[in-house]
Amino acid sequence: MKESVESDRPILVQKYGGSSVGSAERILLIADRIEQNLCETTRLVVVLSAMGKTTDELVSLANEVSDRPTGREMDLLLATGEQVTVSLLGLALQNRGILAISLTALQCGIRTDGVFNEARIKSIDTARIKSELDSGRVVIVTGFQGISEANDVTTLGRGGSDITGAALAAALGAESCEICTDVDGVFSADPSRVSNARQWPKISYEEAIEMASSGAKVLHPRAAEICMEYEVPIHVRSSFHQEQGTWIGGGAIPMERAEVVGVTSDAKVAKITLLNVPDQPGVAARVFDDLARAGVNIRLIIQSASSENRARITFILDLEFLTPVQDLVGHWETEGLMSECVIENDVAKISIVGSRLASTPGLAARMFTVLAGAGINIDCISSSEMKVACVISSDRLDEAVRTVHEEFFPVGERV
Amino acid sequence: MKESVESDRPILVQKYGGSSVGSAERILLIADRIEQNLCETTRLVVVLSAMGKTTDELVSLANEVSDRPTGREMDLLLATGEQVTVSLLGLALQNRGILAISLTALQCGIRTDGVFNEARIKSIDTARIKSELDSGRVVIVTGFQGISEANDVTTLGRGGSDITGAALAAALGAESCEICTDVDGVFSADPSRVSNARQWPKISYEEAIEMASSGAKVLHPRAAEICMEYEVPIHVRSSFHQEQGTWIGGGAIPMERAEVVGVTSDAKVAKITLLNVPDQPGVAARVFDDLARAGVNIRLIIQSASSENRARITFILDLEFLTPVQDLVGHWETEGLMSECVIENDVAKISIVGSRLASTPGLAARMFTVLAGAGINIDCISSSEMKVACVISSDRLDEAVRTVHEEFFPVGERV
Repeated sequence: MKESVESDRPILVQKYGGSSVGSAERILLIADRIEQNLCETTRLVVVLSAMGKTTDELVSLANEVSDRPTGREMDLLLATGEQVTVSLLGLALQNRGILAISLTALQCGIRTDGVFNEARIKSIDTARIKSELDSGRVVIVTGFQGISEANDVTTLGRGGSDITGAALAAALGAESCEICTDVDGVFSADPSRVSNARQWPKISYEEAIEMASSGAKVLHPRAAEICMEYEVPIHVRSSFHQEQGTWIGGGAIPMERAEVVGVTSDAKVAKITLLNVPDQPGVAARVFDDLARAGVNIRLIIQSASSENRARITFILDLEFLTPVQDLVGHWETEGLMSECVIENDVAKISIVGSRLASTPGLAARMFTVLAGAGINIDCISSSEMKVACVISSDRLDEAVRTVHEEFFPVGERV
Repeated sequence: MKESVESDRPILVQKYGGSSVGSAERILLIADRIEQNLCETTRLVVVLSAMGKTTDELVSLANEVSDRPTGREMDLLLATGEQVTVSLLGLALQNRGILAISLTALQCGIRTDGVFNEARIKSIDTARIKSELDSGRVVIVTGFQGISEANDVTTLGRGGSDITGAALAAALGAESCEICTDVDGVFSADPSRVSNARQWPKISYEEAIEMASSGAKVLHPRAAEICMEYEVPIHVRSSFHQEQGTWIGGGAIPMERAEVVGVTSDAKVAKITLLNVPDQPGVAARVFDDLARAGVNIRLIIQSASSENRARITFILDLEFLTPVQDLVGHWETEGLMSECVIENDVAKISIVGSRLASTPGLAARMFTVLAGAGINIDCISSSEMKVACVISSDRLDEAVRTVHEEFFPVGERV
């Protein structure tokens, strides 16, 4: 059993995002960081995103040759981005005498459902990764991509490298999954918008999922879901220093912590309101089924009580999905599913998130009150167990985030 | 047998080089060309190189992160170049409503011996390509690369896309292999050096191999070797128009054709002369075995008759191999294989090529005579059945090529 010593050591999965590998200099910094950490007792799997500028260049080339670049060939094109960064980090580590190997999704057995541009990971055959780790190598893996049954390259959608990191951590039984990024951890609000935003030492998986789903850019919500299911702690931390960041999951959250952990926002969303929708079973199902088939991600659905057998359905989505929705609206009108549609693309969404929201009366009311006090009109409201979201005018968003954050995290007060 | 109609149609393999796919505009031109040709009765497999500038950028990134970027990770990095061009051409064709699919080396079963940076193709499993062709698709394949037994990406070395094209043409039993490039065909000399160089309608495989090996850039000699073995005619032609280029192989060469088909040259070569080499069996074997292990390609070996039990070995190589050779020279000296080494890097090689050279007396003498007449000193000479090569001073090369070409192809005279 020559592997026994190596294979006893715990595995750490580290994911570095696009800004952390954005240039040759940045990649050398990551190589420094890995070299410094190698004295520790863990075996290391590194997942990389593409350089942001590479992706931009590839998208721009695709737009030059095609009116609507999408599907299989677009995935094959974009997947080159991570292949470039993993090769470069492999070369950089090898140049320092560190044993390292760069693997593509195929080489490390990441199999997906084969849905181009938005694939989901079905399984990971970890044999090659484990054998490379057992040979004492740092294993560097392309994030964002997988391979279908037919050996076609499929990408996991925006932020997909987080999902790769989480899925590998789960499949390998890693001791933790580090999300190394350009912020120091998870904050009570976006620190670039709110100067006194607080960094949390620890939050729950559920809070991370809600925050990520409502606009916080720290990690992909599916990554948190996977780690929650497989009980892998996540550590969101800076790529550029060694300070502790924010731990997600992995043990109890302190009893005395705040009810609200974050004020999050989506600046660029559109609001679609379907008017005069027949109040019959199956209509909403038909509408959202059509949207799902068109690949439109809905961020929020609000259906108010109907009057005179006519309902009103409102939903919020990212601006990029406006075109497919406009196509569908024509259909729905023809088929009598609605008589009028109002599209607003100057709206924003602000949310408060916390696992005790439902059990702590009055938090939602405090949010509505301070918004009203600032003269910010709330267009619609949706709340769930762990989140209260308000749609407001996008030109008031910055002010709204600061005002709501100040209500729950007054300047000078420590949690 | 739903495939019967499709699978009866002959297969044409077209390879486009780096300058033909160097930008989005160029790729659109290739898409135009393919669209115009689709009315014809062949099934089409297109092999692409990387954009030249992409390769340059990748090499420069690799040099930023590593002192000596090479090996496995370098292949993984460079292989992204062709993945980009095949994806883009796929998108461009699909955008015109043409059924097309882009395949990587893995997806089209190109297996190599696993030697990184200089792999050789061992086998091609054509199942996927054939099934895509039978579905009526244009199949676009990444040139230059293959996959090892361990599923590692391996590249075929410089000019490797020609080899991919030839190997696919052989494996698929293609009716011909088109090498589409930025020149119109095979010429009696480089048209950019010799204004009255003649384009040949047809040359033999052997002539093509000798010309390619002695500096003509038209195609990789291994590509011609593969096509010769599998009896696939090659058509070297322009990417930018539809005129006939030069056919290689595929039937008899006209009886009355010229003895000399080309004057070729290598401008940037180095000459190494080992002096006082012991005249014992095994010494030359040892020297060239060491060179082969160091990955040094030798262009020419000249060993003159020995005197006083001491031989003199001269060899010619590309300038890029000077560093590994200098390392070896130290070794050889220590081990008494030689006592002195003269390295000259200001030399060039000029050759005449023709399949009737050996059977036509006086051709070599005519070459030596015109060089002497122009006052150009011949440093050494090597000749084979189909080629006479002379090493001369590099600053006289242009003049030498024009002078020798004028001797065999006088201005105004037609062959």
